[in-house]
Order: sequence, then structure tokens, then C-alpha cells
Amino acid sequence: MASMDAEDSISRMDDHDSAFAPTTDDKFTFGLWTVGNRGRDPFGDAVRPPVEPTGLVRLLAECGAYGVNLHDDDLVPFGSSVSERDRIVRDFRAALEDHGLCVPMATTNLFFHPIFKDGAFTSNDPAVRAFALQKTMRAIDLGAELGAKIYVFWGGREGTECDACRDPRDAIRRFRDAIDFLCGYVVEQGYGMRFALEAKPNEPRGDIYLPTTGHLLHFIETLAMPEMVGVNPEVAHETMAGLSFPHAVAQALEADKLFHIDLNSQKVGRYDQDFRFASEDPKQAFLLVRLLEGTARAEFGSYPRYDGPKHFDAHAYRSEDEAGVRDFARGCMRSYKILAARAEAFDADPEVLDLLAANRGDAVDPHDGAGWSTSRAEGLRDLAIDVDQVARRGLQWERLDQLLFEHLTGVRG
Amino acid sequence: MASMDAEDSISRMDDHDSAFAPTTDDKFTFGLWTVGNRGRDPFGDAVRPPVEPTGLVRLLAECGAYGVNLHDDDLVPFGSSVSERDRIVRDFRAALEDHGLCVPMATTNLFFHPIFKDGAFTSNDPAVRAFALQKTMRAIDLGAELGAKIYVFWGGREGTECDACRDPRDAIRRFRDAIDFLCGYVVEQGYGMRFALEAKPNEPRGDIYLPTTGHLLHFIETLAMPEMVGVNPEVAHETMAGLSFPHAVAQALEADKLFHIDLNSQKVGRYDQDFRFASEDPKQAFLLVRLLEGTARAEFGSYPRYDGPKHFDAHAYRSEDEAGVRDFARGCMRSYKILAARAEAFDADPEVLDLLAANRGDAVDPHDGAGWSTSRAEGLRDLAIDVDQVARRGLQWERLDQLLFEHLTGVRG
Amino acid sequence: MASMDAEDSISRMDDHDSAFAPTTDDKFTFGLWTVGNRGRDPFGDAVRPPVEPTGLVRLLAECGAYGVNLHDDDLVPFGSSVSERDRIVRDFRAALEDHGLCVPMATTNLFFHPIFKDGAFTSNDPAVRAFALQKTMRAIDLGAELGAKIYVFWGGREGTECDACRDPRDAIRRFRDAIDFLCGYVVEQGYGMRFALEAKPNEPRGDIYLPTTGHLLHFIETLAMPEMVGVNPEVAHETMAGLSFPHAVAQALEADKLFHIDLNSQKVGRYDQDFRFASEDPKQAFLLVRLLEGTARAEFGSYPRYDGPKHFDAHAYRSEDEAGVRDFARGCMRSYKILAARAEAFDADPEVLDLLAANRGDAVDPHDGAGWSTSRAEGLRDLAIDVDQVARRGLQWERLDQLLFEHLTGVRG
Amino acid sequence: MASMDAEDSISRMDDHDSAFAPTTDDKFTFGLWTVGNRGRDPFGDAVRPPVEPTGLVRLLAECGAYGVNLHDDDLVPFGSSVSERDRIVRDFRAALEDHGLCVPMATTNLFFHPIFKDGAFTSNDPAVRAFALQKTMRAIDLGAELGAKIYVFWGGREGTECDACRDPRDAIRRFRDAIDFLCGYVVEQGYGMRFALEAKPNEPRGDIYLPTTGHLLHFIETLAMPEMVGVNPEVAHETMAGLSFPHAVAQALEADKLFHIDLNSQKVGRYDQDFRFASEDPKQAFLLVRLLEGTARAEFGSYPRYDGPKHFDAHAYRSEDEAGVRDFARGCMRSYKILAARAEAFDADPEVLDLLAANRGDAVDPHDGAGWSTSRAEGLRDLAIDVDQVARRGLQWERLDQLLFEHLTGVRG
Repeated sequence: MASMDAEDSISRMDDHDSAFAPTTDDKFTFGLWTVGNRGRDPFGDAVRPPVEPTGLVRLLAECGAYGVNLHDDDLVPFGSSVSERDRIVRDFRAALEDHGLCVPMATTNLFFHPIFKDGAFTSNDPAVRAFALQKTMRAIDLGAELGAKIYVFWGGREGTECDACRDPRDAIRRFRDAIDFLCGYVVEQGYGMRFALEAKPNEPRGDIYLPTTGHLLHFIETLAMPEMVGVNPEVAHETMAGLSFPHAVAQALEADKLFHIDLNSQKVGRYDQDFRFASEDPKQAFLLVRLLEGTARAEFGSYPRYDGPKHFDAHAYRSEDEAGVRDFARGCMRSYKILAARAEAFDADPEVLDLLAANRGDAVDPHDGAGWSTSRAEGLRDLAIDVDQVARRGLQWERLDQLLFEHLTGVRG
Repeated sequence: MASMDAEDSISRMDDHDSAFAPTTDDKFTFGLWTVGNRGRDPFGDAVRPPVEPTGLVRLLAECGAYGVNLHDDDLVPFGSSVSERDRIVRDFRAALEDHGLCVPMATTNLFFHPIFKDGAFTSNDPAVRAFALQKTMRAIDLGAELGAKIYVFWGGREGTECDACRDPRDAIRRFRDAIDFLCGYVVEQGYGMRFALEAKPNEPRGDIYLPTTGHLLHFIETLAMPEMVGVNPEVAHETMAGLSFPHAVAQALEADKLFHIDLNSQKVGRYDQDFRFASEDPKQAFLLVRLLEGTARAEFGSYPRYDGPKHFDAHAYRSEDEAGVRDFARGCMRSYKILAARAEAFDADPEVLDLLAANRGDAVDPHDGAGWSTSRAEGLRDLAIDVDQVARRGLQWERLDQLLFEHLTGVRG
Repeated sequence: MASMDAEDSISRMDDHDSAFAPTTDDKFTFGLWTVGNRGRDPFGDAVRPPVEPTGLVRLLAECGAYGVNLHDDDLVPFGSSVSERDRIVRDFRAALEDHGLCVPMATTNLFFHPIFKDGAFTSNDPAVRAFALQKTMRAIDLGAELGAKIYVFWGGREGTECDACRDPRDAIRRFRDAIDFLCGYVVEQGYGMRFALEAKPNEPRGDIYLPTTGHLLHFIETLAMPEMVGVNPEVAHETMAGLSFPHAVAQALEADKLFHIDLNSQKVGRYDQDFRFASEDPKQAFLLVRLLEGTARAEFGSYPRYDGPKHFDAHAYRSEDEAGVRDFARGCMRSYKILAARAEAFDADPEVLDLLAANRGDAVDPHDGAGWSTSRAEGLRDLAIDVDQVARRGLQWERLDQLLFEHLTGVRG
Repeated sequence: MASMDAEDSISRMDDHDSAFAPTTDDKFTFGLWTVGNRGRDPFGDAVRPPVEPTGLVRLLAECGAYGVNLHDDDLVPFGSSVSERDRIVRDFRAALEDHGLCVPMATTNLFFHPIFKDGAFTSNDPAVRAFALQKTMRAIDLGAELGAKIYVFWGGREGTECDACRDPRDAIRRFRDAIDFLCGYVVEQGYGMRFALEAKPNEPRGDIYLPTTGHLLHFIETLAMPEMVGVNPEVAHETMAGLSFPHAVAQALEADKLFHIDLNSQKVGRYDQDFRFASEDPKQAFLLVRLLEGTARAEFGSYPRYDGPKHFDAHAYRSEDEAGVRDFARGCMRSYKILAARAEAFDADPEVLDLLAANRGDAVDPHDGAGWSTSRAEGLRDLAIDVDQVARRGLQWERLDQLLFEHLTGVRG
């Protein structure tokens, strides 16, 4: 018989080694909507029974998570009375305390209710825009009450199927107005929160505005308080468009804008899959973990380790019951730590270091990296470069990439 | 017999109507490399004989183009002596004058020569970076001599297959150093040029850094002289990643950063096809032309027409001879004008105007669009919104989108 | 005011011309699930109230449809008693008769209920496979009772996320067993039905087995009664994978296997969008309609017009109310007829005919098209071909493709 | 210093273990065009000097390959005289003998020369079709002379950009005529060869006919001698369209049609990358190797190991010199063997076996898998199935997939 209870699952996982067990320092978090996902999809009904938020807190604590994140409606059902809300929040806080979990991030559900069917902040209808702001102010209050220091905005309905319905510049202007307004609100309330914007190219809309982390990074520079706003890139969302997720994260890191991150996995060019972290394309997952953990030595000194929350925005396959949800949650964290160990070994491998050092010769341009100066321009004009000789040099990236494969597969290291 | 000479082709095209003939005001331009493309591809040899730059100028003039753009090496072959260069430039300027064409844009070839095999500005090798700057300074001088006011940067080799070979943050920093340096150079030389950066997600590299117009718009904000630098979005490049090209262009326009544009067409998720403008997905082409021509009335007043050069960065199918190259060039311009006429009619259609007006009721939030203020927040908190009633309203976008189809197909309008 | 009732919508549509009004000869059909779609999606709730099947029949009749198709559960809710079923079917048949609609196609819902969460016919669990057969036998009985002559199989859950869970060959064998069994059942019952298999590459599963029409065409050849089974290609499903839908349909037609067709539209590389026919990429839609209508003259004589049902497997945007559902349904049919008219004009254009004739010279190989013979081989060996001259010839496909654009946009024709 | 000669490379690779060294039994092959690839791409010049075929044979032997495959023109340049051809072939055979390599597969280059710019077998021009047959007969003779028992057809130019140029059914008919003819030729010559058809969805054409292995498997069933013809699936080609490569291979295996296989790697939705095997998405590579090696125990008994040639149709990154080409070739073979070892351990892991066994209970349908019979139908009708209980069962695929990850990364096993 294949039945399995939670305890079996735990012991089974721990058979091999505890080197990969999650710790507080890892800051691994999950959303209520992730472990609470009931397996509904566009073609199918829910397959798992609902679990109360407090039950999800217990489950996450048992799996070793550090924190739990939420949309307003995940915790307090849409339309709840004030007293219901207060009771729910009280119970939830008690569960957090009992199980030692925190709430690092909160967000607003601006996509489920029919009123948001053509967008929230970017809707043509001023009543929808106003309601979206109302709902978000209340949700920010809730997040603040639970101690969240990061507030995420995913504009999943801010898009179109019929593109003629509004000028896309109007959409950007309306979205900017909303974020500017809400920054002001947070400052006035003294909540000390920062905002993290999350991009997605499409689904549930035909096209979603500001479709990638890159587009959002630019949008942030146009805000009234840009320093308060960063990004929350999600593996699945950039991968849907076939873009390099590590490169997107690197651009955010370089700009000091990686305020939060959503980890999961996804095949390119498909519906939003939200699979267990690293379950698809483990090489990309390795490159990502390597970047976040800061194991690589960059040319310009080394870059710091990302030390914000690592949020798994994923859910168990629809084939799973509650035991499978636990397998899923443990798998996310464990795979991250396996990859972190592999990345550390790779970046300490002397052959890797040699290959990376090999073509970083003496600077031929003494001001390399220093931007413009008249003297640099003059020096460059006169510099003799043996083009054919430089061009002939083999760079040995096949070897380097093969070493990566061998570390990833544990053959080396 | 199917033979056809250039004259046949001209008269044939003009049979129907001259309403769609190109004019100077259209600012239609082509690159030397587009009409001069010889049909080489990864699996096949060149199919068309080489044509001198002066011959291409004549061909473009006969087809009705306004200007011609170039990479340094398109005009002056790599490795030419100074005297060869001077003769070539002199002949080319004479041809431009004879045929009444200008050179609105120039750029550097930083991808063909083997020295750039692992990037130019982002190469790990300081000698390659220095050579790339040298070559670009010379190419900027050439562009300035020909009167180009826009200088394009397409970092086609700035990427990786083996991602471990450099930290992507190092790549961004090196790219920034190069652009900052070259901005300084242009200012010092007093060339009065602006830079336009062009993104591409991949090909010829596995992944290219700063893969979309969005990523570049952000990168520009981190430069030493951001006001001097804008973008040059290309239909094919955003479309390869399945992103909405009109949305990318809209973000650039809203930020006053659309300095140049590359028109062509492309199927999603494929190699870089550079097909004749509007030959693939005419609906997207319609939405793009509508945006550029400014025919739509936006909610926030109307947006101006884009009046920079419209550059066709495309080439004839490999099945074509020279007559086919002319068919290709004429087709690009003609299709643009057909779509502009269709867009104008669509945006003047009373039913379209009614549908767009229908759900822009009276503002329910008196400060809608005005950002943060305490009084706005107070007003919003107390605002009564009938959520169910607002949610129930049908938006009629099926009808609007059908009207678009009927205008596009000429059934209406 | 933007309100609109059904009558308004009708008259409005008819303003322009009735040349594009649907007729019985068009055999336009819709599924109960298409006009009955309530707008639920993975991130959002239903936005439209439920409508009874009889109400949907009325709506379709008013819009001009020829027939209505259904899954078993669309008409008879899962778990209904025999007497409920009989009452529902009786009422539905009365509605069909009242409104003059037929049921050309029926199918089984093998994806919504949790029991099918890991597949139906290909599940590892023999109980699931048995239940899937039971349910399908009952659904076939229902289809037969309603007069359906085509029975569709879409194996939407026949796939995996965790590919190690079964050998994909086992999946193919199980699927074959099911189809063979059900062919036998239909023959024994004397229903005179034919089966049409429908492919989809992914969603709702990570990967679905037999992912394209091509894979299914081969699978059919391995069945016990291949002559009874054909395909039901769907625009959106091949387009998700970026494959040419017209080419897939052509292969099915050439093999006499196009038993049914699902029309809608979709952007490449995204979630299953099921948009209004021709609303995305009108050029592909034109090429498809041209193929189905048989307007082109092929080299090998002409091919017949497809005269089976044309089923719109699509639904209204989530922004719509019932009036929008009618706009959607009318738009599907009207766009098809607009494209049919455009295709007819294109294929009658003398310049198009000239271009196509131009390089179909006299056969140089007298047995061209006749397969193997020793004498053909001998003839071919000795045949002198002027390779350079043949290679030099321009084919004028740029011109031909431009003519297509001009017919499509109504500038010509 | 970064220089490296071939010997260094060999010893370096052997440092770790010889468990993964290639053997004759592995039947690892490469094409002359793979290790001979000079790094030319659409945007760049060749970066590596040409190497004579005999030099490539030596290189492959030193790397441990079993065989070498070729296009006619790879060995004998287009337009060579008969005496040149004979000399080249003699020298090549001598090199094969010296180095102990065989030629398991040969093929025709029907894509490089301009005469094939609009297709070879499917061209509208009878002269092109005739020339393609001539060239292929000669190339088959060459293949036979070198001992090739598999002859591959990749119709890379058999497609369109301007789809109106021919009816796609004409293309299929012409392609069928060509293959039928060539089957006849091989039989008459008594060469004992089998044909393997290779699909690709696009590139270098906008769309290529018969775009996937599935479409080809069906096409084969329509040939005059279907038993003589199988498929040659290529990882990169199915992956470009985002289809599951293991599923395509499984369908070919199940039909006894996997005559040859092309191994490499590729990101989804991009240009044809032909990267080192397993360098992209190692999970898919693992699933493929597992299938080919036959380590999994299927439900219906076990399936045999594929024992044909394993051909690496890939090439070194453009950043590499000759040492990098060797790194590339060794990496392909080594990664295959690493994955084979991982697959073997995974399929022997008791927990994996338990998970797979868990839901293969006793058949509830005694004729399950046996196709149609009246008694089976009767049995099924009456079978009581507890739908809710079956539906509730969790399948534990999260755990199974996590075990795969842990075997792949070498944490377990």
C-alpha cells in the first residue's frame, strides 16, 4: 500500500543527510496560496480539501519554513465583516507565534473578483481604480499588522486581449498614479514597508503591461519615490517568455532593487506552471542559486549574498494529496540547498578558477572601466592591438560549461 | 515567362493607387545591409551578387526611400586603408547627393569579426573591449561625416552560451562604461548625436544581456548622461520572445525615449527572421502603426505622432533576385501606409469612439491620476462603490476587436 | 450609455452588409461550453451567470449557427440520475427542434473530475481507466441519441508533470487499447459514428502525450480500425507550439483524415487562449480559410473544399456579458466569411495566377511524380541541368506575399 | 597561461575517472560537419580554420568516437571532378581504417547551394526536383561505398516563408514521390540501407513541412515501402517547438521506427543552437538517456535498449579553438555516460520502485489492455467503481520527481 503520512515523509526525507535541512538563516518562505493550493485549473476542479490558514502555518512549520506570506483574501475572505476579520487575524497571529513563523511579505488580491476583470489600477473605469486603491490600503494595513516589511504588487489583470481598448501609455500612467499614491500612504502611516513589483508577460490576460523585470525596473525610476520600490522577479514569469532569469535577477541586484524573489520552475513558452523549485531545468536553477548565494568571484571584487526572503511561489502537482504537498514544500527547500552546495564547490574548484582567470590579462587600457576622459580617448586611439592574435584565442567555455555539468551532477567536487 | 525588371515592378505596383506611395514626410529608411543582403543563412550560401553601396543608394531612391543607414563595415570594408576609406566615402556622398537621400542613422559592426566572438564591450578580454571602443569611435566619426544624428548600439554578441564565464553584473558594468565613454566622446567632438540602444533576447548568442527594450530603458537611467540615450526597438526582437511590441514602444514613447525604430516582421519563438514589414501578424503591425501615427485619442489628451525615421531592418526572402529586393522594399513602405490609412479610419469610426467612451464615466475619485495626498486617501476610504454592479458591466471589447478586424480587412471604413 | 441588448447587437452587425451572414451551408457550430463559458480562469472567478443548455441553443440559433456540440457533462451534470438525464435530454431535443439546430459532434469530459487528475485512458490506475471507458460508453450513447456522427477525443489529462511516473510507451499502448475498444463499441452498437482525435501539446498537463495532429495521424495508423478514426485539429493547440496550423490541416486533408476542425485563435507560446476566430494573426487565418474553402488551384488538379462542420471552440473574453457573448459568436462566423471572400478574390487575381504559373515549366523529368522505375532513374542520371541558371532565377514570392497582404487588407480585389 | 593543447585536454579529462570513457559498444558518432564546424553564423564569420576530413577522423578517434557521418559535400566538395572525388574517398577510407572508425550514416546536402533556395524535393521547379534526385542518388552511392547502413533525409529547405507559393499538399506529394523513388533506387542497387527522416519545425525556412517526428511517422505510413523508412529525431529540433523530446522518441520506439538519433541540446523557442549534449536542461537529457538505455521497468514487461548509433549533431561554441572542439566532443560522450549511470541508479532505487508500484493495483477490468470484446464491454458496464475514493488517492509524483532530482544531482544513488 502506498499510503504515507506526514511523519513517514519526514523520516524518509531525512534518511540521507541533514546537510540540506532548512534553517532560519535560509529565510525560506511560502505563500498561504501555495501550500493551500487546491489544484483547481482551467480544465479541472479542486482536488484537495481546503485547509485553514492556521493549519497551513502548522504544516509549514513542520516542513521547516521560516515565514509565510499572504494575499489579503487568503487570510480574510472577501466580504468578511470587521469582527470576523479581527477574529481571523487574532487566530492567525496566535498560530504564527505557536509555530515560530513570521510574515515577511503581504500582497493584495486584485485579480480574482469579477470587478477586476479588465484590470484594477489600469482599468478604464474610475470606480474600479478607486476600489482597487481602497482594497489595497486595507490590505497594506493588514500586512503591517502582521509585521510584513515587503509589500508585493503583481498586476496580473493589468493587461488586454483587445489592445485597442486603451492606449498602453494610459495604462502606465494609471499604474504609476496608483503606486505613487500607495507609497504616500505607507509613508504617512509610518509602516516602514518597501514595495516589490512583480512582472509577468501574459496569463491570465492576453498581454500584461510591463511584462518583465526589466520593464518594471525602468518604470520604478519614473515614480515619485523610486527608492521605496524594487522588484520581485519570479522564475516562472520570465521563463514563460524564454528570457534568462539569472540575467534579470542580476540586473536587479546590480541596481540594488532585488527586494524579494519568487522561486519555482517552469518550461519555456507555456502556461504558468508554478512547479516545485528546480524541478525543471536544473542548470538554470543552479545558475540562479549561485548568483543569490554569491559564491562566484566577480572581476570587480565580489558581490554580496542576497539575504532577503526566498519565497517559493509554487504549488504541488494536482496529482497530490496533503502528504504530497509536504513532499513538494520540503523538495523546494532541499533542492535549493543541494544546488547551493554544488555552486559552492564549483566556485572553489581550482580548474574553474583557472579557466576564469585565463583571459583576464593585464588591462591594455589603463582607464578601463572608468568612463569618459579625454586622456583615455587619446590613449585608446593610439593603442596597438593585434586583432588577429586576440581573435584566434580559444576561450575554453566548453570546458567550463562541462565542469558545471559535472558539479551539478555530483560527479566532481 | 516570369522575368521582370525593375521598371515592370514599378509600374505594376502603381497600377492600383498612389495613395500609398512613400513621401519624404514618411521618413522611410533602409540599411545598406537590408537591401544589400545577399541571402546567406546558417545553412546556405549567398544567392544574390554583391551590389556596391552606391548601387544600393540608387535602388533605394528608385523605390522611394528617404534615407539610408549603415554599419561602418557596410560602407568601408574592415581593414581598408585611409585612402580607400576616403575614396569610398566621397563616392557614397556623391551618390547620396545625386539621388537625394540622407543618412539619418549609423552604427558599428561589433559582431562579424572573430575578435568579437565572445562579446565586444562586455568581453572578459580588455584588449577586445579596447578594440571595440576604438572601432566605435572611428565609426562614429564616419557617421558624423555623413550627417547621422542617431547612432545605434545593438549588442548582438554581448551575451553567453556558457553562463558561468562571467558575472552578468560585470557585463552590465562593462557595457555601461562603454556607453558612458562614447557619450563623452560625442559630446567632446560636438557631433550633436543621440544614441539609440537596441535589444535582442538571443541569437547569435545563447542569451544576450539586457534582452528587451524594457531592460534597456532601465539601463539608460543608470548612465552618466541618460538624456543623450534612448532606444531603438525592433519588431522582430521583442516578438522573438513573444512580448507585445506595441506595449514596448508605448513604454519608450511615454518616457520620451523612442529615438529610432526598426520595422520588420517575425513569428514568435523562432530564429531572427527580419521579414518584410507587416508580412507576419498584420494585427500587431496595425496596432503598432496606429501607435506611431497617433491616430487614437487617449484618455489623457492625445499623444503626439512619432516623427523620427522609420527604418525597415529587414531583407528580401532568399528566394528573390534583385527585382524581388525591390518588391520587398516597396512592400515594406506600402504596407505601412495601408495600415496607417486603416488606423485613421478605425479611430474615426463613431462606433469605435462610442465603445471607448462607454466606460469612462465621471471620475468617482476626484483626485484620480493625481498621486498621493492625505485628502485623496480620506476621500477614497469613504467612497461607496457598488462592487457587484460595477463587476456586472460588460465591456464590449469583443465588438471593439471585431471592428478592428473589419477595418483591417477593409470591410468597413 | 453603453448598454446593449441582443436585438441592438443584431441590427448593428447587419448595418454593413449581409454578404457575410452565416448560412446552413457553412455548417458553423459551437460547443455548449463555448457560448456557455462563464469566464472562470486560473486566477479568477466566474463573471457570467450560468445559462441553461436550452438557452444556449436559443442564443446560437439567433446568432445564425448551424449546430451545437457538447461534452456529456455540459448537458447532463456529472452524477445525475437516469430520470434527470432523460428529462434534460428531452428538453434539449425539443429546444433543438424549436430552433432548427443539430448536434453534429459529441465528446466526453475526461478532465474535470478529480478522478482524472493523472489521466483517464492512460492513468496508471486500472480503476481510472475502467471508469473512463464506462463514462465514454455512456457519453457515446448520449451523442448517438442526439444524432452526432462525429465523436471527439481530446486527451487533455493524458500527460505528465513528473515524467518518470510511467513509460510514455505504456501511455500510447493504453490510449490505443481505449480507442480500439471504443471503436468496437460503436460498431457493435451500429451508431455509424466516426472518431476525431484532438491533440494539444500541454496544459492542463506539463506535457500531453501525442502532442500534435501529426503525432495523432501516425497513432491512428496503429489502431485496429484506422479507417474509422481521423483528427480534429484545433488552431490554438498547434499554435501554442508555434507550428503552422495550415500545414497540419493540409497533412490531414491529404490523408483524408480531416473529420472535424476546431476554429479559434491564439498567440504562440502561451496558455490556451481560445480567442474569437481570426482575432489573432489574421494572415494565418486567411491561409487556413483558403485551404478549407479550396479556392487555390493546386498543381495536381484542384483539391476539394472541406465540407464538414466548422466548429468554433472559443469563448468570449472575460470582460464580456451576454451581449458580448453574442458579439463573440457572430464575430467568429462573420470573420470566417470575410476571409473566404478575400481568399476567393486572391485566388482569382490574374497576377497571382501568373506568379504561381511562372516557375512551373515543362517537366524536365518525364516521370516526375510517378515514384520509382528503372527507366526514370536512367533518365534522371543522364539529364543535363544548368544548375547556375536555375539557381539564379528569382521566384517573386515577395510580390506574391505582398499581394496576399493587399487582398487581406482589402486594398486590392 | 591559458593555452592548452590536445594532450593536456586529454589528461585533464581523465583525471577524475574512466568510468565514463566512451567504448565501442556506446556507438557514439559525430558528423564531419560537427567537429569540422568553423563557427560561422548569421551575424559572424568563421572563427576556426578548415580541417581536412582525414584530420577530423583523427580528432574523433583520439576523442574516443566510434564512427563518423557525413553529407556528400562535407567529404567531396560540390562540383569536384570524378577523379578528385575518387582520390578524396580513397584518402578518407584510409584514414578510417588507420583510426578504426566506421561510417554508420550518410546524407545529402540539399540546402547549401542556391539552387535549393526554395526547396529541393518540394520545389515548384521540376528542374530543381530532378537535380535533387540526381544529387541524392550520387550521395547514396557514396554512402554505400563507405559502408553506411542508415541514410538520413533532413528536408531543411522544404518549406516556405510565403505560404501561398504552393499548396502544402503538393509539397507532401512531391516529398513522397522523392522518397518512394529513392527507396526503389536503394533496393535495386542492393545497398541494404534504411532511410531515417529528420524533422525540424522551422529555420532556415519560415516553416518547414512535416515539422515534427510525429508528422514524419505518419508520412512514412503513406510511402510505397514504409518498412524501409524510419525517423532520426533530433533533440534540438523538437525542443525548438517546446515539445517533449522523450515522448517523440518513445512514439518512434513503440512503432519500431527509431532508426537513428541526433543528440545535442537547445533552449526552447530559439534559433537552432546545436549545443553540446546535455548542456541545456539536464533533466530532459536524463529522461532521454533513461529511455534509450532502457533502465526503466515498464508495466508491459520491459522495453529493449536502443542499440543504434548515437550521433552527436552539435558543434563547439563559437568561442572555441581546436582544443575547445575536443572538449566539446569529449563532453558530449562523457555527459551521456554520466546520465546513463544516474538513470541506472534511479531505476534501481527501491523507493522509486515502490512509488511506481504503488498505484498499479489489481486490474479491475479483467480484459484491460485487450481491446474490444463484447464480454469486456459487458463487464465494464457493470463494474462498480468507488469514484470518490479513487479520486482522493495522492499519487506521490512530487516525491518521485524529487528523487529524480536527487539522483541527477548525485545526492542519492
